[in-house]
Amino acid sequence: MATKRPVTFQVTEAAPSDGSTRARAGRLETPHGAVETPAFMPVGTNATVKALDPDDLVEVGAQMILANTYHLYLRPGHERIARLGGLHAFMAWPRPILTDSGGFQVVSLAGLREIDDGGATFRSHLDGSTHRFTPELSIAVQEALGPDVAVAFDQPVPPHASSWSEVAVATARTSRWAERSLAAHARPDQALFGIIQGGLEPDLRAASTQAIAALPFDGLCIGGLAGDETAAQRAAALEVVVRLLADDPRPRYLMGLGSPLDMLEAIHQGVDLFDSVLPARVARNGTLWVPDGHLNLRNARFLDDGAPVQEDCPCRLCRQFSRAYLSHLFRAEELLAYRLATCHNLTFTLDFMARARRAIRAGTFPAYRRSMAPDPNPDDPSRPRPSDRQAGAKGG
Amino acid sequence: MATKRPVTFQVTEAAPSDGSTRARAGRLETPHGAVETPAFMPVGTNATVKALDPDDLVEVGAQMILANTYHLYLRPGHERIARLGGLHAFMAWPRPILTDSGGFQVVSLAGLREIDDGGATFRSHLDGSTHRFTPELSIAVQEALGPDVAVAFDQPVPPHASSWSEVAVATARTSRWAERSLAAHARPDQALFGIIQGGLEPDLRAASTQAIAALPFDGLCIGGLAGDETAAQRAAALEVVVRLLADDPRPRYLMGLGSPLDMLEAIHQGVDLFDSVLPARVARNGTLWVPDGHLNLRNARFLDDGAPVQEDCPCRLCRQFSRAYLSHLFRAEELLAYRLATCHNLTFTLDFMARARRAIRAGTFPAYRRSMAPDPNPDDPSRPRPSDRQAGAKGG
Repeated sequence: MATKRPVTFQVTEAAPSDGSTRARAGRLETPHGAVETPAFMPVGTNATVKALDPDDLVEVGAQMILANTYHLYLRPGHERIARLGGLHAFMAWPRPILTDSGGFQVVSLAGLREIDDGGATFRSHLDGSTHRFTPELSIAVQEALGPDVAVAFDQPVPPHASSWSEVAVATARTSRWAERSLAAHARPDQALFGIIQGGLEPDLRAASTQAIAALPFDGLCIGGLAGDETAAQRAAALEVVVRLLADDPRPRYLMGLGSPLDMLEAIHQGVDLFDSVLPARVARNGTLWVPDGHLNLRNARFLDDGAPVQEDCPCRLCRQFSRAYLSHLFRAEELLAYRLATCHNLTFTLDFMARARRAIRAGTFPAYRRSMAPDPNPDDPSRPRPSDRQAGAKGG
Repeated sequence: MATKRPVTFQVTEAAPSDGSTRARAGRLETPHGAVETPAFMPVGTNATVKALDPDDLVEVGAQMILANTYHLYLRPGHERIARLGGLHAFMAWPRPILTDSGGFQVVSLAGLREIDDGGATFRSHLDGSTHRFTPELSIAVQEALGPDVAVAFDQPVPPHASSWSEVAVATARTSRWAERSLAAHARPDQALFGIIQGGLEPDLRAASTQAIAALPFDGLCIGGLAGDETAAQRAAALEVVVRLLADDPRPRYLMGLGSPLDMLEAIHQGVDLFDSVLPARVARNGTLWVPDGHLNLRNARFLDDGAPVQEDCPCRLCRQFSRAYLSHLFRAEELLAYRLATCHNLTFTLDFMARARRAIRAGTFPAYRRSMAPDPNPDDPSRPRPSDRQAGAKGG
């Protein structure tokens, strides 16, 4: 008799048999509630989605958030959070949480790392102290934090900075670490997702997909993308993964992607779950996403603009304040600017995902995707661009 | 037939005839609603109370806020705010607003000022550009901003940095500028308060009280205090003013005072209205006010403290989060720390004022004041101290 898993995923609307899209809708059930997919997870690096409180997160429509194992391990410490009742209680967030494995931050953020088959030794970006992460420690940290979903420890590689053999070594190691992560994981109320790596090498991506998918993970992360690869390279890597996964019933999570139009393409290819710091980070820089592109609220032309950032947007910013006011707040470096702008960009992003779900359920996703009219000029600055995964490493 | 004034004040509970206190309760009616006094106004220097939005302000119990004429004149500009519908619409604050005259900031904040009988020439602290404020311009700026209450242009002097003759010159000039401010003020839906100066010189304080009270202002500000004077010096200056005002029916507003225990003493002496950046500023530095004193949340001992900052406090911080979480947010320099801490200190301060009002109405204010047990050691760091008015100049 199979044990009931703490997190289950059901495809509620399968991709159409006509092959027009692999987009699908689903429902992830967790100990802290359900998540309708495709879903986007805002990132709460330090157990807070920057500038927002839990009420704000509910208001923008967040169903589930991501928190960073690496950051919380270093500060305030996973054992401290466990003593305080776990991450949900600590940050007063009642809905689902996923933690990443820490592997990405160790590779991208920490200093002086040395990686061997046993694990990764690195220096904290906060104080230079030396630490060593192993699959077993990553799992122990995540069990202490207590998210609904933990993620196996991996070794990502930057797609363009690594040779085939470097990618091969890291990918094989990721598979061995996946098995060790599974063996170490014991918390019964927590799911464990595995991470598929393989960079941009089709053979390694395929091998990693087969290796990770063969293990009894509750979900499958697709790592090593959403970095500096092109959209075509990402699509090609994703194609390898999703084609091999075929009818695998588990959720597919593309780590680190946050540009709405990029997510739309990934949904089309069959991805269910996303996370990124991108919408919040660009908001704090004064870039507000709107249906036609974006507005840079630091531009002086908005100082006399009495219109809301986006007509009919239900967010805390747009329903009360003008572009002029937000522009003033940014110029005066007022803290309220960061909260209001973040509320808007997350509302925009989460609404974008809700529309995609509705289109999938209505069977109109291919038309919806075309209506979003991918920009003919990919260098157009009005199109939100990724490079969000690496940015994410710096702390949300 | 007397014209109905846009702002009226009614003493709803007069000071008791037994002379035990001059504390009184009142009600200030404005075009944007009523304010129960004694009242404390949070400061929204740049048309925002730092880190809070209007919903937060309502939740902490703010009845009325102060905005700074000097800052808004420089950025984003009063004419711009007027074109955008005025300060209430600009910052989406539906309740009463008072603007100060700009005199204090010109004297304390701007560079290279030259003051003559005509007005004050100064350099912007933002960009060094040269400006000249006159009573007429201060009134024009405030009429453009559109608060419920404007304040006459004045020349404050720092009590300890000025000779008798310097204070005498500034006080006489403040009287002449008060008359010019009154002559210039025409906006029918806006009240105008005058400012009593006179430093710590009893004769000058008395002369200023008589001169300003003789003019048809809607309320009387008491300026030049809440700086570096001692509590005894402040009480002595206040005694001169309030004794002379006697049964004057207009509201008395002590500018810049924000320490709860200091306000309690001033209420006892007959003050109705206060403002200060102090509760919010110390909050942003990690100092949380509690009934017994304060907690410095930057202290490592709070990192493991699962208790709320203050039991039974209804604020956004205390009803959801632990001291441990707030302490973590401060260490990680997370934006949410500043909002939560500010919500708490303003809730504490405004609740403190509400208790004072209830005690006055119940006839128990003298006992309430004694129960607050002024600290026997005035240097005890656990007692919130002022020096808030000068701090306020720097921008809230």
